[in-house]
Amino acid sequence: MNKGLLFVVSAPAGCGKDTILEQVLAKTENVGYSVSATTRAPRPGEVDGVHYHFHTRESFEQMIKDGAVLEYTEYIGNYYGTPRKAVEDMLAQGKDVILKIEVEGAMNIKKLFPECCLVFILPPSMAELERRLRKRGTEDEETILRRTAQARNEIGTAVNYDYFVVNDALEEAVDDLIAVIRAEKCRKARCMEMLEKIKGE
Amino acid sequence: MNKGLLFVVSAPAGCGKDTILEQVLAKTENVGYSVSATTRAPRPGEVDGVHYHFHTRESFEQMIKDGAVLEYTEYIGNYYGTPRKAVEDMLAQGKDVILKIEVEGAMNIKKLFPECCLVFILPPSMAELERRLRKRGTEDEETILRRTAQARNEIGTAVNYDYFVVNDALEEAVDDLIAVIRAEKCRKARCMEMLEKIKGE
Repeated sequence: MNKGLLFVVSAPAGCGKDTILEQVLAKTENVGYSVSATTRAPRPGEVDGVHYHFHTRESFEQMIKDGAVLEYTEYIGNYYGTPRKAVEDMLAQGKDVILKIEVEGAMNIKKLFPECCLVFILPPSMAELERRLRKRGTEDEETILRRTAQARNEIGTAVNYDYFVVNDALEEAVDDLIAVIRAEKCRKARCMEMLEKIKGE
Repeated sequence: MNKGLLFVVSAPAGCGKDTILEQVLAKTENVGYSVSATTRAPRPGEVDGVHYHFHTRESFEQMIKDGAVLEYTEYIGNYYGTPRKAVEDMLAQGKDVILKIEVEGAMNIKKLFPECCLVFILPPSMAELERRLRKRGTEDEETILRRTAQARNEIGTAVNYDYFVVNDALEEAVDDLIAVIRAEKCRKARCMEMLEKIKGE
Protein backbone atom coordinates (compact mmCIF):
# COMPACT_ATOMS: atom_id res chain seq x y z
CA MET A 1 0.00 0.00 0.00
CA ASN A 2 1.24 3.47 -0.82
CA LYS A 3 1.67 5.93 2.01
CA GLY A 4 -0.71 8.85 1.95
CA LEU A 5 0.35 12.38 1.04
CA LEU A 6 0.55 15.17 3.55
CA PHE A 7 -1.10 18.50 2.68
CA VAL A 8 -0.58 21.59 4.78
CA VAL A 9 -3.22 24.28 4.41
CA SER A 10 -2.66 27.78 5.77
CA ALA A 11 -4.78 30.88 5.52
CA PRO A 12 -5.13 34.16 7.34
CA ALA A 13 -8.14 34.39 9.65
CA GLY A 14 -11.23 35.32 7.67
CA CYS A 15 -10.28 33.42 4.49
CA GLY A 16 -12.86 30.72 5.16
CA LYS A 17 -10.41 27.87 5.58
CA ASP A 18 -12.59 25.99 8.08
CA THR A 19 -15.59 25.96 5.74
CA ILE A 20 -13.41 24.98 2.77
CA LEU A 21 -11.80 22.11 4.66
CA GLU A 22 -15.15 20.89 6.00
CA GLN A 23 -16.53 20.68 2.45
CA VAL A 24 -13.38 19.15 1.00
CA LEU A 25 -13.49 16.39 3.61
CA ALA A 26 -17.20 15.82 2.94
CA LYS A 27 -16.63 15.55 -0.82
CA THR A 28 -13.56 13.28 -0.82
CA GLU A 29 -12.82 9.75 0.23
CA ASN A 30 -9.56 8.71 1.78
CA VAL A 31 -8.61 12.20 2.93
CA GLY A 32 -8.16 12.59 6.67
CA TYR A 33 -7.93 15.72 8.76
CA SER A 34 -5.53 16.29 11.59
CA VAL A 35 -7.26 18.20 14.36
CA SER A 36 -4.82 20.68 15.86
CA ALA A 37 -4.27 21.19 19.56
CA THR A 38 -4.48 24.67 21.02
CA THR A 39 -4.62 26.56 24.28
CA ARG A 40 -6.85 29.31 22.93
CA ALA A 41 -10.43 29.50 24.18
CA PRO A 42 -13.12 27.83 22.04
CA ARG A 43 -15.17 30.22 19.91
CA PRO A 44 -18.97 29.88 20.00
CA GLY A 45 -19.92 26.63 18.30
CA GLU A 46 -16.44 25.11 18.38
CA VAL A 47 -16.34 21.52 19.60
CA ASP A 48 -13.38 19.92 21.39
CA GLY A 49 -11.86 17.18 19.24
CA VAL A 50 -13.62 18.42 16.12
CA HIS A 51 -12.41 21.97 15.53
CA TYR A 52 -9.45 21.75 17.91
CA HIS A 53 -8.24 19.68 20.80
CA PHE A 54 -8.52 22.35 23.49
CA HIS A 55 -5.84 22.19 26.17
CA THR A 56 -4.66 24.11 29.20
CA ARG A 57 -1.16 25.56 28.96
CA GLU A 58 -0.02 22.91 31.41
CA SER A 59 -1.27 19.93 29.44
CA PHE A 60 0.00 21.42 26.17
CA GLU A 61 3.46 21.88 27.66
CA GLN A 62 3.37 18.26 28.83
CA MET A 63 2.64 17.12 25.26
CA ILE A 64 5.63 19.13 24.04
CA LYS A 65 7.84 17.44 26.64
CA ASP A 66 6.50 14.01 25.64
CA GLY A 67 7.28 14.58 21.95
CA ALA A 68 3.57 14.13 21.25
CA VAL A 69 3.32 17.16 18.93
CA LEU A 70 4.98 17.20 15.50
CA GLU A 71 5.37 20.95 15.69
CA TYR A 72 3.95 23.77 17.75
CA THR A 73 4.08 27.50 17.80
CA GLU A 74 2.86 30.39 19.89
CA TYR A 75 0.54 32.79 18.12
CA ILE A 76 -1.22 35.77 19.69
CA GLY A 77 -0.43 34.41 23.12
CA ASN A 78 -1.64 30.85 22.60
CA TYR A 79 -0.03 27.54 21.69
CA TYR A 80 -1.06 25.77 18.48
CA GLY A 81 0.34 22.35 17.61
CA THR A 82 -0.06 19.18 15.59
CA PRO A 83 -0.56 15.93 17.51
CA ARG A 84 1.92 13.43 16.11
CA LYS A 85 0.22 10.06 16.36
CA ALA A 86 -2.98 10.76 14.42
CA VAL A 87 -1.00 12.10 11.44
CA GLU A 88 1.47 9.24 11.35
CA ASP A 89 -1.30 6.63 11.65
CA MET A 90 -3.39 8.07 8.81
CA LEU A 91 -0.39 8.35 6.47
CA ALA A 92 0.65 4.76 7.24
CA GLN A 93 -2.91 3.61 6.40
CA GLY A 94 -2.55 5.20 2.96
CA LYS A 95 -4.79 8.14 3.74
CA ASP A 96 -3.95 11.60 2.55
CA VAL A 97 -3.86 13.97 5.50
CA ILE A 98 -4.69 17.65 5.66
CA LEU A 99 -3.08 19.76 8.37
CA LYS A 100 -4.45 23.22 8.98
CA ILE A 101 -1.52 25.20 10.35
CA GLU A 102 -0.40 28.80 10.46
CA VAL A 103 2.59 29.83 8.41
CA GLU A 104 5.36 29.24 10.92
CA GLY A 105 4.11 25.74 11.74
CA ALA A 106 3.78 25.01 8.03
CA MET A 107 7.47 25.71 7.50
CA ASN A 108 8.32 23.41 10.43
CA ILE A 109 6.22 20.61 8.90
CA LYS A 110 7.97 21.14 5.55
CA LYS A 111 11.30 20.53 7.27
CA LEU A 112 10.00 17.34 8.93
CA PHE A 113 8.19 16.11 5.77
CA PRO A 114 10.02 17.59 2.76
CA GLU A 115 7.59 15.80 0.43
CA CYS A 116 4.51 17.47 1.87
CA CYS A 117 2.47 19.80 -0.29
CA LEU A 118 1.78 23.35 0.94
CA VAL A 119 -1.45 25.13 0.01
CA PHE A 120 -2.17 28.75 0.91
CA ILE A 121 -5.74 30.04 0.84
CA LEU A 122 -5.92 33.65 -0.24
CA PRO A 123 -8.71 36.19 0.03
CA PRO A 124 -9.79 37.77 -3.28
CA SER A 125 -8.44 41.07 -1.91
CA MET A 126 -7.27 42.65 1.35
CA ALA A 127 -10.38 44.85 1.42
CA GLU A 128 -12.64 41.79 1.18
CA LEU A 129 -10.67 40.05 3.92
CA GLU A 130 -11.16 42.95 6.32
CA ARG A 131 -14.86 43.06 5.46
CA ARG A 132 -15.19 39.34 6.30
CA LEU A 133 -13.33 39.73 9.60
CA ARG A 134 -15.70 42.50 10.66
CA LYS A 135 -18.75 40.56 9.54
CA ARG A 136 -17.82 37.62 11.75
CA GLY A 137 -18.53 39.87 14.72
CA THR A 138 -16.81 37.68 17.30
CA GLU A 139 -13.82 39.95 17.84
CA ASP A 140 -13.33 43.47 19.09
CA GLU A 141 -11.85 46.24 16.96
CA GLU A 142 -8.34 45.80 18.33
CA THR A 143 -8.37 42.09 17.49
CA ILE A 144 -9.68 42.83 14.01
CA LEU A 145 -6.90 45.32 13.33
CA ARG A 146 -4.31 42.91 14.73
CA ARG A 147 -5.69 40.09 12.58
CA THR A 148 -5.66 42.25 9.47
CA ALA A 149 -2.02 43.18 10.07
CA GLN A 150 -1.26 39.53 10.82
CA ALA A 151 -2.98 38.49 7.58
CA ARG A 152 -0.73 40.86 5.67
CA ASN A 153 2.35 39.30 7.27
CA GLU A 154 1.13 35.80 6.54
CA ILE A 155 0.31 36.58 2.91
CA GLY A 156 3.87 37.90 2.69
CA THR A 157 5.09 34.34 3.29
CA ALA A 158 2.71 32.70 0.80
CA VAL A 159 5.52 32.55 -1.74
CA ASN A 160 6.90 29.59 0.24
CA TYR A 161 3.81 27.53 -0.62
CA ASP A 162 3.23 25.23 -3.61
CA TYR A 163 -0.36 26.17 -4.48
CA PHE A 164 -2.66 29.14 -3.99
CA VAL A 165 -6.40 28.72 -3.69
CA VAL A 166 -8.40 31.95 -3.82
CA ASN A 167 -11.57 31.87 -1.76
CA ASP A 168 -13.74 34.15 -3.85
CA ALA A 169 -16.61 31.76 -4.60
CA LEU A 170 -16.59 29.04 -1.93
CA GLU A 171 -17.58 26.19 -4.25
CA GLU A 172 -14.74 27.01 -6.63
CA ALA A 173 -12.20 27.13 -3.80
CA VAL A 174 -13.41 23.75 -2.53
CA ASP A 175 -13.09 22.21 -6.00
CA ASP A 176 -9.66 23.80 -6.45
CA LEU A 177 -8.35 22.19 -3.29
CA ILE A 178 -9.87 18.81 -4.20
CA ALA A 179 -8.19 19.07 -7.61
CA VAL A 180 -4.85 19.91 -6.01
CA ILE A 181 -5.06 16.83 -3.78
CA ARG A 182 -5.95 14.61 -6.73
CA ALA A 183 -3.46 16.09 -9.20
CA GLU A 184 -0.60 16.04 -6.74
CA LYS A 185 -0.83 12.24 -6.71
CA CYS A 186 -0.20 12.27 -10.47
CA ARG A 187 2.91 14.45 -10.30
CA LYS A 188 5.99 12.82 -11.75
CA ALA A 189 8.02 12.99 -8.57
CA ARG A 190 5.35 10.98 -6.75
CA CYS A 191 4.96 8.32 -9.49
CA MET A 192 8.52 7.31 -10.30
CA GLU A 193 8.21 3.93 -8.61
CA MET A 194 5.14 3.06 -10.68
CA LEU A 195 6.85 4.19 -13.88
CA GLU A 196 9.90 2.04 -13.16
CA LYS A 197 7.64 -0.95 -12.50
CA ILE A 198 5.93 -0.61 -15.89
CA LYS A 199 9.25 -0.06 -17.66
CA GLY A 200 10.74 -3.09 -15.90
CA GLU A 201 8.13 -5.54 -17.18
CA MET B 1 -7.99 38.41 -19.26
CA ASN B 2 -5.43 35.74 -18.40
CA LYS B 3 -3.96 33.70 -21.19
CA GLY B 4 -4.95 30.05 -21.20
CA LEU B 5 -2.56 27.27 -20.24
CA LEU B 6 -1.18 24.81 -22.72
CA PHE B 7 -1.36 21.09 -21.89
CA VAL B 8 0.42 18.49 -23.97
CA VAL B 9 -0.91 14.96 -23.65
CA SER B 10 1.06 12.01 -24.96
CA ALA B 11 0.39 8.31 -24.75
CA PRO B 12 1.43 5.17 -26.56
CA ALA B 13 -1.15 3.75 -28.95
CA GLY B 14 -3.66 1.62 -27.04
CA CYS B 15 -3.64 3.73 -23.84
CA GLY B 16 -7.07 5.15 -24.60
CA LYS B 17 -5.99 8.76 -24.96
CA ASP B 18 -8.67 9.60 -27.52
CA THR B 19 -11.48 8.40 -25.26
CA ILE B 20 -9.97 10.14 -22.24
CA LEU B 21 -9.61 13.44 -24.10
CA GLU B 22 -13.13 13.21 -25.51
CA GLN B 23 -14.57 12.81 -22.01
CA VAL B 24 -12.34 15.48 -20.48
CA LEU B 25 -13.51 17.96 -23.10
CA ALA B 26 -17.14 16.97 -22.54
CA LYS B 27 -16.83 17.43 -18.76
CA THR B 28 -14.94 20.75 -18.70
CA GLU B 29 -15.68 24.31 -19.73
CA ASN B 30 -13.10 26.59 -21.23
CA VAL B 31 -10.78 23.81 -22.34
CA GLY B 32 -10.12 23.63 -26.06
CA TYR B 33 -8.59 20.90 -28.14
CA SER B 34 -6.09 21.36 -30.90
CA VAL B 35 -6.81 18.95 -33.71
CA SER B 36 -3.54 17.69 -35.16
CA ALA B 37 -2.73 17.47 -38.84
CA THR B 38 -1.46 14.22 -40.32
CA THR B 39 -0.74 12.46 -43.57
CA ARG B 40 -1.69 9.02 -42.26
CA ALA B 41 -4.85 7.40 -43.62
CA PRO B 42 -8.03 7.81 -41.55
CA ARG B 43 -8.98 4.76 -39.48
CA PRO B 44 -12.59 3.53 -39.67
CA GLY B 45 -14.81 6.10 -37.98
CA GLU B 46 -12.25 8.91 -37.97
CA VAL B 47 -13.60 12.23 -39.21
CA ASP B 48 -11.52 14.90 -40.93
CA GLY B 49 -11.30 18.01 -38.75
CA VAL B 50 -12.48 16.13 -35.66
CA HIS B 51 -9.92 13.39 -35.02
CA TYR B 52 -7.28 14.83 -37.33
CA HIS B 53 -6.95 17.25 -40.19
CA PHE B 54 -6.04 14.71 -42.88
CA HIS B 55 -3.59 15.98 -45.49
CA THR B 56 -1.64 14.75 -48.48
CA ARG B 57 2.15 14.84 -48.16
CA GLU B 58 2.17 17.75 -50.60
CA SER B 59 -0.24 19.93 -48.66
CA PHE B 60 1.44 19.06 -45.34
CA GLU B 61 4.82 20.08 -46.73
CA GLN B 62 3.29 23.34 -47.92
CA MET B 63 2.06 24.05 -44.36
CA ILE B 64 5.58 23.45 -43.08
CA LYS B 65 6.98 25.92 -45.63
CA ASP B 66 4.32 28.48 -44.67
CA GLY B 67 5.16 28.22 -40.95
CA ALA B 68 1.57 27.12 -40.36
CA VAL B 69 2.54 24.24 -38.03
CA LEU B 70 3.98 24.86 -34.56
CA GLU B 71 5.86 21.58 -34.70
CA TYR B 72 5.79 18.45 -36.80
CA THR B 73 7.44 15.10 -36.84
CA GLU B 74 7.57 11.99 -38.98
CA TYR B 75 6.34 8.82 -37.27
CA ILE B 76 6.03 5.40 -38.88
CA GLY B 77 6.28 7.00 -42.31
CA ASN B 78 3.70 9.75 -41.80
CA TYR B 79 3.79 13.42 -40.85
CA TYR B 80 2.04 14.59 -37.68
CA GLY B 81 1.90 18.26 -36.77
CA THR B 82 0.19 20.99 -34.77
CA PRO B 83 -1.55 23.76 -36.71
CA ARG B 84 -0.35 27.05 -35.24
CA LYS B 85 -3.27 29.43 -35.55
CA ALA B 86 -5.95 27.47 -33.69
CA VAL B 87 -3.68 27.03 -30.66
CA GLU B 88 -2.58 30.65 -30.51
CA ASP B 89 -6.17 31.91 -30.90
CA MET B 90 -7.57 29.74 -28.10
CA LEU B 91 -4.77 30.67 -25.69
CA ALA B 92 -5.26 34.37 -26.45
CA GLN B 93 -8.98 33.98 -25.71
CA GLY B 94 -8.09 32.65 -22.25
CA LYS B 95 -8.91 29.05 -23.08
CA ASP B 96 -6.77 26.22 -21.84
CA VAL B 97 -5.65 24.13 -24.77
CA ILE B 98 -4.91 20.42 -24.95
CA LEU B 99 -2.54 19.19 -27.62
CA LYS B 100 -2.37 15.46 -28.25
CA ILE B 101 1.14 14.85 -29.52
CA GLU B 102 3.65 12.02 -29.59
CA VAL B 103 6.75 12.28 -27.46
CA GLU B 104 9.10 13.97 -29.91
CA GLY B 105 6.56 16.64 -30.78
CA ALA B 106 5.86 17.17 -27.09
CA MET B 107 9.51 18.02 -26.47
CA ASN B 108 9.41 20.48 -29.37
CA ILE B 109 6.32 22.17 -27.91
CA LYS B 110 8.06 22.37 -24.52
CA LYS B 111 10.90 24.30 -26.19
CA LEU B 112 8.46 26.69 -27.86
CA PHE B 113 6.23 27.06 -24.76
CA PRO B 114 8.43 26.43 -21.71
CA GLU B 115 5.43 27.07 -19.44
CA CYS B 116 3.32 24.32 -20.94
CA CYS B 117 2.37 21.33 -18.82
CA LEU B 118 3.21 17.83 -20.05
CA VAL B 119 0.96 14.88 -19.20
CA PHE B 120 1.80 11.29 -20.07
CA ILE B 121 -0.94 8.66 -20.10
CA LEU B 122 0.34 5.27 -19.00
CA PRO B 123 -1.19 1.81 -19.34
CA PRO B 124 -1.59 -0.11 -16.06
CA SER B 125 1.02 -2.57 -17.38
CA MET B 126 2.78 -3.49 -20.62
CA ALA B 127 0.85 -6.78 -20.75
CA GLU B 128 -2.46 -4.91 -20.56
CA LEU B 129 -1.29 -2.49 -23.27
CA GLU B 130 -0.52 -5.33 -25.67
CA ARG B 131 -3.87 -6.93 -24.90
CA ARG B 132 -5.65 -3.68 -25.76
CA LEU B 133 -3.72 -3.25 -29.00
CA ARG B 134 -4.73 -6.74 -30.11
CA LYS B 135 -8.33 -6.22 -29.07
CA ARG B 136 -8.62 -3.15 -31.30
CA GLY B 137 -8.26 -5.49 -34.26
CA THR B 138 -7.57 -2.74 -36.80
CA GLU B 139 -3.89 -3.60 -37.28
CA ASP B 140 -1.97 -6.62 -38.52
CA GLU B 141 0.48 -8.56 -36.33
CA GLU B 142 3.52 -6.71 -37.60
CA THR B 143 1.95 -3.35 -36.77
CA ILE B 144 0.98 -4.58 -33.30
CA LEU B 145 4.53 -5.69 -32.55
CA ARG B 146 5.92 -2.43 -33.94
CA ARG B 147 3.47 -0.43 -31.82
CA THR B 148 4.31 -2.41 -28.69
CA ALA B 149 8.02 -1.78 -29.21
CA GLN B 150 7.23 1.87 -29.95
CA ALA B 151 5.19 2.09 -26.74
CA ARG B 152 8.15 0.83 -24.78
CA ASN B 153 10.36 3.52 -26.31
CA GLU B 154 7.79 6.21 -25.62
CA ILE B 155 7.30 5.16 -22.01
CA GLY B 156 11.06 5.39 -21.69
CA THR B 157 10.76 9.15 -22.30
CA ALA B 158 7.86 9.66 -19.85
CA VAL B 159 10.30 10.92 -17.25
CA ASN B 160 10.40 14.19 -19.22
CA TYR B 161 6.72 14.81 -18.42
CA ASP B 162 5.19 16.66 -15.46
CA TYR B 163 2.28 14.34 -14.66
CA PHE B 164 1.39 10.70 -15.20
CA VAL B 165 -2.19 9.56 -15.59
CA VAL B 166 -2.71 5.80 -15.51
CA ASN B 167 -5.58 4.58 -17.64
CA ASP B 168 -6.69 1.59 -15.60
CA ALA B 169 -10.29 2.63 -14.91
CA LEU B 170 -11.32 5.13 -17.59
CA GLU B 171 -13.44 7.33 -15.32
CA GLU B 172 -10.56 7.72 -12.86
CA ALA B 173 -8.14 8.65 -15.62
CA VAL B 174 -10.59 11.26 -16.93
CA ASP B 175 -11.00 12.76 -13.46
CA ASP B 176 -7.22 12.71 -12.92
CA LEU B 177 -6.62 14.73 -16.07
CA ILE B 178 -9.40 17.19 -15.20
CA ALA B 179 -7.82 17.62 -11.74
CA VAL B 180 -4.40 18.22 -13.27
CA ILE B 181 -5.80 20.97 -15.51
CA ARG B 182 -7.58 22.61 -12.59
CA ALA B 183 -4.75 22.26 -10.05
CA GLU B 184 -2.12 23.48 -12.45
CA LYS B 185 -3.86 26.85 -12.53
CA CYS B 186 -3.37 27.07 -8.73
CA ARG B 187 0.36 26.34 -8.81
CA LYS B 188 2.47 29.07 -7.30
CA ALA B 189 4.48 29.75 -10.43
CA ARG B 190 1.26 30.51 -12.33
CA CYS B 191 -0.22 32.77 -9.63
CA MET B 192 2.60 35.14 -8.74
CA GLU B 193 0.98 38.09 -10.48
CA MET B 194 -2.23 37.62 -8.48
CA LEU B 195 -0.29 37.29 -5.23
CA GLU B 196 1.64 40.48 -5.91
CA LYS B 197 -1.61 42.30 -6.62
CA ILE B 198 -3.13 41.29 -3.27
CA LYS B 199 0.09 42.13 -1.43
CA GLY B 200 0.27 45.51 -3.19
CA GLU B 201 -3.16 46.67 -1.97
